[in-house]
Amino acid sequence: MPALIEAWPELSAEVATWPQSDQSIELAVVRLLAPVPRPGKILGIGLNYVAHARETNLPIPEKQIWFAKATTSVNGPFDPVQLPKVSTMVDYEVELVAVIGRRCRHVSYDEAHKAIFGYCVGNDVSARDWQGRTPQWTLGKSFDTHAPFGPWLTTADEVGNPHRLDLSCKVNGESRQASNTSDMVFNVFDQIAELSQVMTLEPGDVIYTGTPSGVGMALSPPRFLEPGDRVTCEIERLGVIEAVMTPE
Amino acid sequence: MPALIEAWPELSAEVATWPQSDQSIELAVVRLLAPVPRPGKILGIGLNYVAHARETNLPIPEKQIWFAKATTSVNGPFDPVQLPKVSTMVDYEVELVAVIGRRCRHVSYDEAHKAIFGYCVGNDVSARDWQGRTPQWTLGKSFDTHAPFGPWLTTADEVGNPHRLDLSCKVNGESRQASNTSDMVFNVFDQIAELSQVMTLEPGDVIYTGTPSGVGMALSPPRFLEPGDRVTCEIERLGVIEAVMTPE
Repeated sequence: MPALIEAWPELSAEVATWPQSDQSIELAVVRLLAPVPRPGKILGIGLNYVAHARETNLPIPEKQIWFAKATTSVNGPFDPVQLPKVSTMVDYEVELVAVIGRRCRHVSYDEAHKAIFGYCVGNDVSARDWQGRTPQWTLGKSFDTHAPFGPWLTTADEVGNPHRLDLSCKVNGESRQASNTSDMVFNVFDQIAELSQVMTLEPGDVIYTGTPSGVGMALSPPRFLEPGDRVTCEIERLGVIEAVMTPE
Repeated sequence: MPALIEAWPELSAEVATWPQSDQSIELAVVRLLAPVPRPGKILGIGLNYVAHARETNLPIPEKQIWFAKATTSVNGPFDPVQLPKVSTMVDYEVELVAVIGRRCRHVSYDEAHKAIFGYCVGNDVSARDWQGRTPQWTLGKSFDTHAPFGPWLTTADEVGNPHRLDLSCKVNGESRQASNTSDMVFNVFDQIAELSQVMTLEPGDVIYTGTPSGVGMALSPPRFLEPGDRVTCEIERLGVIEAVMTPE
């Protein structure tokens, strides 16, 4: 996928001339993989919606707070998510996911939209006990299967303004998160500009752009995910992903 | 390299039968690349030598503190290291680097040595201003060129006990760090056991196992790296890597 994404500017015109296939396969009979099964890196931003920062009793960040998810945590959009043997505090976080389209460094805010190939729905599954075990969130964000995204990769031109999308998360059909990407503290273009000051971004790199309020950790009392729970994340124009929580 | 490492148990006997070449190339005329040019992940442990934790005025950790370095930060063992335009506080950290040899999860302490393919000398170059900019160290550890390691990959059988190796760092020939891997708070096998509770480790994954005391940040007054500075990191049995600091 990273190679396809990188070649897309040359390929897209040709692909558009291909005759549309009259053979279709029901979505229900296929297993969708993550749109980028093995990204070069997965980065996530913390506390990036005002109401979410407030619910965790933390200040609205003045600087972007970045962490990494291990690339081995990638999961298909409808695959089961593991409840690890060593965690009792697994939580959901619906997020707009941006997928990088070109190798770039030092991208300005105004140019940042050109660095984005497309968008997905993501669930930044978080083991809160491990996230809070030390000052660094890395392990709590990196359990196997804890980076589902999909259901497919919608190219940026189909999405239009990424900062005007409703996003929501339900657990067993009950609404838990419902917001709009306009509520981000740092928008997607801010994020690209910041990250690319530090590191080269590459085709297929995956960016989790922050979660709105309503996470299980912040409910009173907190409610963590249990075996059999069905977590449904949806973003306007991008589709739905869904996972059943499954003991490891 | 990850594929070669993965196949090594089958290949090593065959390779041992190959006739030794009588053609040699001077090291001085080649450019050595990082032994794993594109690892699946790079993880680093913080505050893992007692004297280093003390010099940063932080407590000896009770739990392992893990962070990630972006895979795009990999650098060859003698390649220049960039002093980023956006940082004025770049620092060195000599570290024993372990390279994973097999796909594994839930590895016990006693079995952990079997997961390690070999070892390198690493420099966990750190932009302290960015490391301290937010509570998460990820960006400060992830600048391009800030993960040099090498000079080659010494297989574990050649190293023997990884917890009895002198390691040192010099800047322009002046000793800054000098310790022994026996001073780790959590040794390499502890680290493999901890990480593999969370995530699948894969052939070629790179683990920076912590730095001893003597970093520039902790000197009084602090001394950060400047253009032209030559940083030499050495570990007993593993060799030397060296980088000249170069403005981005």
